[in-house]
Amino acid sequence: MEELKAYIRNIPDFPKPGIQFKDVTTLFQDKEGFKKALDALEARFKNEGFDAVAGIESRGFILGAALADRLGLGIVLVRKKGKLPGETLSQTYALEYGTDELQVHVGAIQKGQKILLVDDLLATGGTFEAAAKLVEASQGTVGALLCIIELTGLPGRELLKNYRVESLITYDEG
Amino acid sequence: MEELKAYIRNIPDFPKPGIQFKDVTTLFQDKEGFKKALDALEARFKNEGFDAVAGIESRGFILGAALADRLGLGIVLVRKKGKLPGETLSQTYALEYGTDELQVHVGAIQKGQKILLVDDLLATGGTFEAAAKLVEASQGTVGALLCIIELTGLPGRELLKNYRVESLITYDEG
Repeated sequence: MEELKAYIRNIPDFPKPGIQFKDVTTLFQDKEGFKKALDALEARFKNEGFDAVAGIESRGFILGAALADRLGLGIVLVRKKGKLPGETLSQTYALEYGTDELQVHVGAIQKGQKILLVDDLLATGGTFEAAAKLVEASQGTVGALLCIIELTGLPGRELLKNYRVESLITYDEG
Repeated sequence: MEELKAYIRNIPDFPKPGIQFKDVTTLFQDKEGFKKALDALEARFKNEGFDAVAGIESRGFILGAALADRLGLGIVLVRKKGKLPGETLSQTYALEYGTDELQVHVGAIQKGQKILLVDDLLATGGTFEAAAKLVEASQGTVGALLCIIELTGLPGRELLKNYRVESLITYDEG
């Protein structure tokens, strides 16, 4: 879906100097772009027997929620620590400096459910790996990891080699 | 849509003692509940000439994104300070203690666009009011404010009396 690059904006030096940030909000807010992305994802994942979508906070909620609706599924929220009100499972993961923590509600994913995990970006893969561990801790199965943008110059796909990884748009920078 | 209450979970004492938190994640993750909510919202807002949905971070992103897709629209993100990578407009609003700040990208809403603003909860109305000001600062028109849950024991609707306010589920507690 290289044509979707026309809807992505490059923001230099965000969130810090030297980073070329790929801004997907310009895709989300464009009705043609948003529809093209969802049409492509619906075609790719329909009739594959997924039981639920899980969206990773918070840009993963956007395509994740609309895709869940297209597929006739619900959407489970994978959130940063402290945001979910009920009892949670937690998974820490490494950042460049320090660690962060993702959580999912106990019971949100049921035993044996095949889950489609959605986030906006695949870079180092640490966030997806943590979210996948939460699915597995919930006794669900990670059917696929779906990102909008994959930075192929970074080792995310290698870290996630035991999973099916799907991306909508690739950039070869890192 | 009182039948949707069956999908909402009550969490006592979150985020602090004495608050009865209405957990909408159990609605989102249930495929029948999620579909029923979206069917009702699509019927309510189709053919009303909205130009875009704007979702308020981050639970507003879920129904907002799926509803935008149902209506053939894009979704603009209204986020907490510092989360949007490009140039932004900002609006501060009062919390119980202190203030918070919402932002929208410059250019995300275009002059004259009729916007459907979506959030999960209407309590005091401060968040919706700030988001509505951002729509107006972008020279858009607030066509409606849509929440999943309205707490009718609180003065949110009074604060927002100059706007069309729509809710999916009401609770008479405050």
